[in-house]
Amino acid sequence: MQDKPSPIRETDEEARRLARKLLRGARYASLAVIDPQTGFPSVSRALLGIDLDGVPVILVSDLASHTVALKNDARCSILTGEPGKGDPLAHPRITVFCNAEPVDRQSEDHARIRARFIARHRKAELYVDFADFRFFRLAPVSAALNGGFGKAYLLSGEELTIRNFSFAAEWLHLQKLVGSMKAEANAAAQAMKAGEISDWTVSAADMAGFDLIRGDILLRYEFEEPILDVNGIINRISNFSKTS
Amino acid sequence: MQDKPSPIRETDEEARRLARKLLRGARYASLAVIDPQTGFPSVSRALLGIDLDGVPVILVSDLASHTVALKNDARCSILTGEPGKGDPLAHPRITVFCNAEPVDRQSEDHARIRARFIARHRKAELYVDFADFRFFRLAPVSAALNGGFGKAYLLSGEELTIRNFSFAAEWLHLQKLVGSMKAEANAAAQAMKAGEISDWTVSAADMAGFDLIRGDILLRYEFEEPILDVNGIINRISNFSKTS
Repeated sequence: MQDKPSPIRETDEEARRLARKLLRGARYASLAVIDPQTGFPSVSRALLGIDLDGVPVILVSDLASHTVALKNDARCSILTGEPGKGDPLAHPRITVFCNAEPVDRQSEDHARIRARFIARHRKAELYVDFADFRFFRLAPVSAALNGGFGKAYLLSGEELTIRNFSFAAEWLHLQKLVGSMKAEANAAAQAMKAGEISDWTVSAADMAGFDLIRGDILLRYEFEEPILDVNGIINRISNFSKTS
Repeated sequence: MQDKPSPIRETDEEARRLARKLLRGARYASLAVIDPQTGFPSVSRALLGIDLDGVPVILVSDLASHTVALKNDARCSILTGEPGKGDPLAHPRITVFCNAEPVDRQSEDHARIRARFIARHRKAELYVDFADFRFFRLAPVSAALNGGFGKAYLLSGEELTIRNFSFAAEWLHLQKLVGSMKAEANAAAQAMKAGEISDWTVSAADMAGFDLIRGDILLRYEFEEPILDVNGIINRISNFSKTS
């Protein structure tokens, strides 16, 4: 499309923030892969998680055609940003192009991803350890953000991942710490103008923000700037209940 | 996947009905195409219409990357069936593999498709006639229905289209006739246990069923058996207000 009048706007910080919220706040995604038998692009639905470095992850069955496809060709894309009421095209959404990397079940990656995924999708605990289920990390290559009519942006994969991430034990342990911050979770939900103000839980946190869940609702809070130490994140979340 | 234990069930009439309702009752779809520059599968969102023969149609801009992709490679797939509350994977959805056929703006096809599309998506009237917008008919090749965990079915393209369709003038005129059936629309909505029981409109009808709209809500009603004449359809819709 480079030889045509381009509707693409210059990517600014607001666009990057919107892109990250659309990706990191999604419970599920439309997943496009290439069907190995026909070559057709194939779109299906998958539950979505986010690793500590901001990389999206999916949990899929070997019996599902998208898994067969990803093993054959790692190129894929995911669409997140669900329409609510009104015109579906007025709601922002993002397409993230990714290379899918299978996660070895015996690896530390698997333990970390499993813990974060189950904290977000509690019912997945019922089948995550079945022999035919596996995680893929979907390493972002580039992305197309559509913020509504005439608001199109292109982003690099790096703009969607967390630069200074750490997989050290304290960062995995952070999830347990934030899980007990019930009052803080409710205060954060109130600050985010969630409809309900009770029964929220902080399901996970990372350098870029944290996830609030309540039943099947997921809210992603993005910090203004990344917070590079675990205590800083605890303090930041605690502040919600102090100031409200 | 044919050499593996298959989780695919035998397609029965109930599965076909569910597949048709998921496709014909969708306001929008996730659309997967092949990016001509990178070869990646690319998924985006598009408003969905249905032609008189049951073939899904999209209205897209030449400036959008999915349009560029479809002009280069007509193979695509669409995913419909939006999750409500609860586990997203518990909600039925369908992937329909299609060949995209551009609709010539000067053709009778265009006039028919335009009228039906606008009846369903009223805001599209604002841009449907812009020079860079065009319709594609997405001729179904095959489909994969997922009715929830462990309920997977494969369908042929023919099972999703309307066998005895007619593009004769009376069938296009039918849309105007049903548009004035306000009491019947409300009675039909009540029979379908829609939450609201007023302000419904029959936006379109075909041999296989009819569409009810109210603001941004679309409900698809499928007849038990196809009705092959226009008067039969008018009578069938009228019966809702007589029996309620």
